[in-house]
Amino acid sequence: MMIVMKEGASPEQIGAVVARVESVGAQAHISQGELVTVIGAIGDREHVANLGLEGFPGVDHLVPILKPYKLASAQFKKDERTVLDIAGRKIGGPHFMTIAGPCTVESRDVLLETARVVRDAGAQLLRGGAYKPRTSPYSFQGLGIEGLRFLQEAKEETGLPIVTELMDVRDVDAVLEVADVVQLGARNMQNYNLLTEVGRSGRPALLKRGLSATLEELLMAAEYILKEGNENVILCERGIRTFETAYRFTLDLLAVPALRELTHLPVIVDPSHAAGRRDWVKPMSLAAAAAGADGIIVEVHNQPEEAICDGPQAIPTDVFADYAEQVRMVAEVAGKELARV
Amino acid sequence: MMIVMKEGASPEQIGAVVARVESVGAQAHISQGELVTVIGAIGDREHVANLGLEGFPGVDHLVPILKPYKLASAQFKKDERTVLDIAGRKIGGPHFMTIAGPCTVESRDVLLETARVVRDAGAQLLRGGAYKPRTSPYSFQGLGIEGLRFLQEAKEETGLPIVTELMDVRDVDAVLEVADVVQLGARNMQNYNLLTEVGRSGRPALLKRGLSATLEELLMAAEYILKEGNENVILCERGIRTFETAYRFTLDLLAVPALRELTHLPVIVDPSHAAGRRDWVKPMSLAAAAAGADGIIVEVHNQPEEAICDGPQAIPTDVFADYAEQVRMVAEVAGKELARV
Amino acid sequence: MMIVMKEGASPEQIGAVVARVESVGAQAHISQGELVTVIGAIGDREHVANLGLEGFPGVDHLVPILKPYKLASAQFKKDERTVLDIAGRKIGGPHFMTIAGPCTVESRDVLLETARVVRDAGAQLLRGGAYKPRTSPYSFQGLGIEGLRFLQEAKEETGLPIVTELMDVRDVDAVLEVADVVQLGARNMQNYNLLTEVGRSGRPALLKRGLSATLEELLMAAEYILKEGNENVILCERGIRTFETAYRFTLDLLAVPALRELTHLPVIVDPSHAAGRRDWVKPMSLAAAAAGADGIIVEVHNQPEEAICDGPQAIPTDVFADYAEQVRMVAEVAGKELARV
Amino acid sequence: MMIVMKEGASPEQIGAVVARVESVGAQAHISQGELVTVIGAIGDREHVANLGLEGFPGVDHLVPILKPYKLASAQFKKDERTVLDIAGRKIGGPHFMTIAGPCTVESRDVLLETARVVRDAGAQLLRGGAYKPRTSPYSFQGLGIEGLRFLQEAKEETGLPIVTELMDVRDVDAVLEVADVVQLGARNMQNYNLLTEVGRSGRPALLKRGLSATLEELLMAAEYILKEGNENVILCERGIRTFETAYRFTLDLLAVPALRELTHLPVIVDPSHAAGRRDWVKPMSLAAAAAGADGIIVEVHNQPEEAICDGPQAIPTDVFADYAEQVRMVAEVAGKELARV
Repeated sequence: MMIVMKEGASPEQIGAVVARVESVGAQAHISQGELVTVIGAIGDREHVANLGLEGFPGVDHLVPILKPYKLASAQFKKDERTVLDIAGRKIGGPHFMTIAGPCTVESRDVLLETARVVRDAGAQLLRGGAYKPRTSPYSFQGLGIEGLRFLQEAKEETGLPIVTELMDVRDVDAVLEVADVVQLGARNMQNYNLLTEVGRSGRPALLKRGLSATLEELLMAAEYILKEGNENVILCERGIRTFETAYRFTLDLLAVPALRELTHLPVIVDPSHAAGRRDWVKPMSLAAAAAGADGIIVEVHNQPEEAICDGPQAIPTDVFADYAEQVRMVAEVAGKELARV
Repeated sequence: MMIVMKEGASPEQIGAVVARVESVGAQAHISQGELVTVIGAIGDREHVANLGLEGFPGVDHLVPILKPYKLASAQFKKDERTVLDIAGRKIGGPHFMTIAGPCTVESRDVLLETARVVRDAGAQLLRGGAYKPRTSPYSFQGLGIEGLRFLQEAKEETGLPIVTELMDVRDVDAVLEVADVVQLGARNMQNYNLLTEVGRSGRPALLKRGLSATLEELLMAAEYILKEGNENVILCERGIRTFETAYRFTLDLLAVPALRELTHLPVIVDPSHAAGRRDWVKPMSLAAAAAGADGIIVEVHNQPEEAICDGPQAIPTDVFADYAEQVRMVAEVAGKELARV
Repeated sequence: MMIVMKEGASPEQIGAVVARVESVGAQAHISQGELVTVIGAIGDREHVANLGLEGFPGVDHLVPILKPYKLASAQFKKDERTVLDIAGRKIGGPHFMTIAGPCTVESRDVLLETARVVRDAGAQLLRGGAYKPRTSPYSFQGLGIEGLRFLQEAKEETGLPIVTELMDVRDVDAVLEVADVVQLGARNMQNYNLLTEVGRSGRPALLKRGLSATLEELLMAAEYILKEGNENVILCERGIRTFETAYRFTLDLLAVPALRELTHLPVIVDPSHAAGRRDWVKPMSLAAAAAGADGIIVEVHNQPEEAICDGPQAIPTDVFADYAEQVRMVAEVAGKELARV
Repeated sequence: MMIVMKEGASPEQIGAVVARVESVGAQAHISQGELVTVIGAIGDREHVANLGLEGFPGVDHLVPILKPYKLASAQFKKDERTVLDIAGRKIGGPHFMTIAGPCTVESRDVLLETARVVRDAGAQLLRGGAYKPRTSPYSFQGLGIEGLRFLQEAKEETGLPIVTELMDVRDVDAVLEVADVVQLGARNMQNYNLLTEVGRSGRPALLKRGLSATLEELLMAAEYILKEGNENVILCERGIRTFETAYRFTLDLLAVPALRELTHLPVIVDPSHAAGRRDWVKPMSLAAAAAGADGIIVEVHNQPEEAICDGPQAIPTDVFADYAEQVRMVAEVAGKELARV
């Protein structure tokens, strides 16, 4: 931690800061510039983080030097990239993964039909929500246990591993019975007890960025999972909240190269929720692949106009194969190795 | 729902929209302007909300007309304001409430000493967290059950009702044993299962606005509690996330008059978390009272420089009485009836 | 304009709104829903826009129906796309354009050397600023007239048309002597007198989105140019301001497909300013092309580490040809016709 | 400037950074922590600001230590507060100033009638725009020269000094003939040539914060005026752009205490534009005074329902005296000395 003093801070003020730093068992290194004095506090990370010097007399501001996450940092793996293997499908490093399926599990038929199409078009994982966090208490909240059963059936029939969302610590066991990858939604990115449970489960986790979470906060959320010994975390950019109202969220694709510098974990993009409209999903999917993402997770439906939830943003199954092929072509230009279908 | 067609939308496109509206059992009212056709869809609220016409050929955009919340709306109580009575302390309507105490329950002594001071200075409720949502898994996570016991002791000694946070559905019973008001933190504003459990408990709830939640989303979260039959909800503005980095959050005081128009529920302000520094907490507390808030919830500590958590933003106990008196003076100018201490 | 009344609005309140609408010479169409009455105001666009009914008794909110821009709208050209021809180089429709060069004109040598490289690598236009808007009054403000002279020389030597920024209405003549395309920077997007002067000049304009401008405001700014009879406007997304501090700005690539739906004007992307670092400029350039942009404007420098301004984000000349080729490959996947170099 | 190296940065990388720092004539101070090395670059402010080390091998990020503004900083005046005297009316330090009048000068009668009322209610300055920056080229753009004449007449009749906006460097002389305070609007906060001209004029300036400007950028804009030798700058918070759409802008009242710490210049608040509705203007005015503002600038109109521009947010003249009195009562609680009317 660096403590930047105000111009003209008095020796007494500087002395008080030094005393405070030393009182938590840290060392204080004073650098006296022409105008400004900077005090470096070196010692135990947590103690230093809690110095409480904001607003102290003579203190201008504090600058943290160490990143607050450790296990998620690129340095922790010495810049080697984590590759996850999900029932034989790889993501991370040179591997690009396409995850596709309906937003919600609405019915057995929709799920199975969609699953077959996305598998045949080269998708590696099947997505579908049995539990849905909905802004309105009056909206469809998902089929729950029945939805999980349909997912199991789709897995058995198509051979596709399953990604599905966990919303409640009480549902951990039920979801783990089916999920090859446990999705933690944007609204639950800082539901720390839920993160901890997923960490303890050891199951691969797909952690979506909260809609106003900084990259650092996303990595801190990943850290909650990692510190339980679960190294299998996929990060997902899905759009952030900004002033622009022309779309539902602002897809923040700079997060892709930035996260790939900060962390060893794979980074994917959900182009569906930000766009909110299928004609904008394809350009954003191509853009995600171009930006260097390790994969995409996209909503597909065999009858989007009949979908209970988010139909307008679903890619219809009959154009999915073309769509997926174009995404792969761009991913190749961006440097990914791809097995052509 | 109004469906605004693009300029030059064809009769076929208009016809397709009308057919879609009617297919969900709603009525379509066509208004043909000089340039643009607008189609009103009138019928069951949920069906109409799920028309899925975004991106339909010829559709420009959709405009919802009905507010998505019902029980939280001012109209639901015909503009009468809800007044909560918490063990004899009132909030809402003409009543201004001061809630004060340490951020976290750190120790029995800090809690008891701070509680006595805030009670003597006229605070009506005692706040203090036993469970703390922390960005870092390496930070102090609260004393848990032991913290709840200290709160119980403080309640018994000072007579102050208790506000404390619930983070996990598994802790409902333990928290309800002590809490007169259950706090739902900003990170959990959209933890719907938690909201539902608090709704079912019937216990007064203090619901903090998520840091990128719109007022509408805040009211939808309140609706999850209200629809379980629990009418005792206090809303709390605590700062939103914006581009400005000179403070931790941007305290959005326009939310106060805006919420007071939209809803009958009491609206309070937490000035501590946005400011992050105690010298900015007082101006923001006065501003909250001036804006018409029904109360404030503020962090107070008897030894802020020793606090484990958020010490820099705590008001020291030795200046709290003056602070609280000034807040009340401003609340009176803004129209509140106040019992002077 | 639709005026949505509050639930329970009285007949008198509805009558007062109708009277207000009719007082400006517009017609009022009343739609009575089960819960809510909506009043459509149909008539002269400007009169209707200035009804001033916000906050009227019984009025909930107003919803504009017509877009506030006309000449910039896609409908104005019946969904035909505008193609600009700049000294033989085309942009818009199927044509992808690469604009490259140094941020600032610093010296004759840097400019000429960089210009040759970008031309040989297939860039169609040369960029470079003689007048620079700088946040600090103590920073280098550009070479001014001398910079314009160097640009003229580079044009003569390389044959590349010039894009350069205009900041001040008093510099119109000097800039028009050299500029084939006049750039209007993000900070001047709402400098309406400057827009009007560029409109009157008839010269092609490159209009950058302000860093907190909505797409609608960007199109309204374009409208200031178009309404003077100048149809040659290129829009440019260059990053918006959000809460994220991991990069300078958040590049908003959803703006590309959204603008391409709203307007007939070409849309390009500046990947350099948002990224702020050259290793993030390439992924964002590929992403822009993938999103369907009509071109990119990118900073290139032959000695970036010596650059006076924004060196860290400049692509070095020695890797520019490879970079430009990859961008074109992605643009082709996204549907552009490209002349290979 | 502090350069924070990545964990595991090599000695060669550290050496290269040191060499770069020394190449601009600055000194490099190396602090080796357990995990991370920090290099302080000490020397000429501008040289150090342009090191261009972002993205250098081994560099994690750069932290500026010195504030980029000098003349605007609180330290420059050793924490003494600037008090402006505008034709005998004081603002700053203990003085609270009320500036009131119509948004736009629409007609002689409206202006004169409104001016008399606000003067009698204790307003110290009269506001009114002759030149109006309007989002739409089709909206009323102000009366221009004729508007300035009406302002002159109002000044002569009421004795109130005038605040009016300057939008174009070509209008400097005309505006200076009438304006006692030259307003620089939010859209022109970074119109640097305009700032410089106002600086040169020596006339007091009212500088509005751009709607996505940080406090630092606002102070940098003030610096453009100050460095021309004009010390008479009033800063104005008028609402920032955020994700919330329930109001036009988010009034950022934390800016008041934060600016009062950062700078010696007076800080006022415009509550009208953010609220956009008169019933929300009063709570925000009281909140501004409570937050410690040095004044408010508020829109008042004698016939708001007939106003050409922004009528819904104007305080009607017949309630202005009460409004102004309440604002003063709150300002007194917040520590201002006020001459009662």
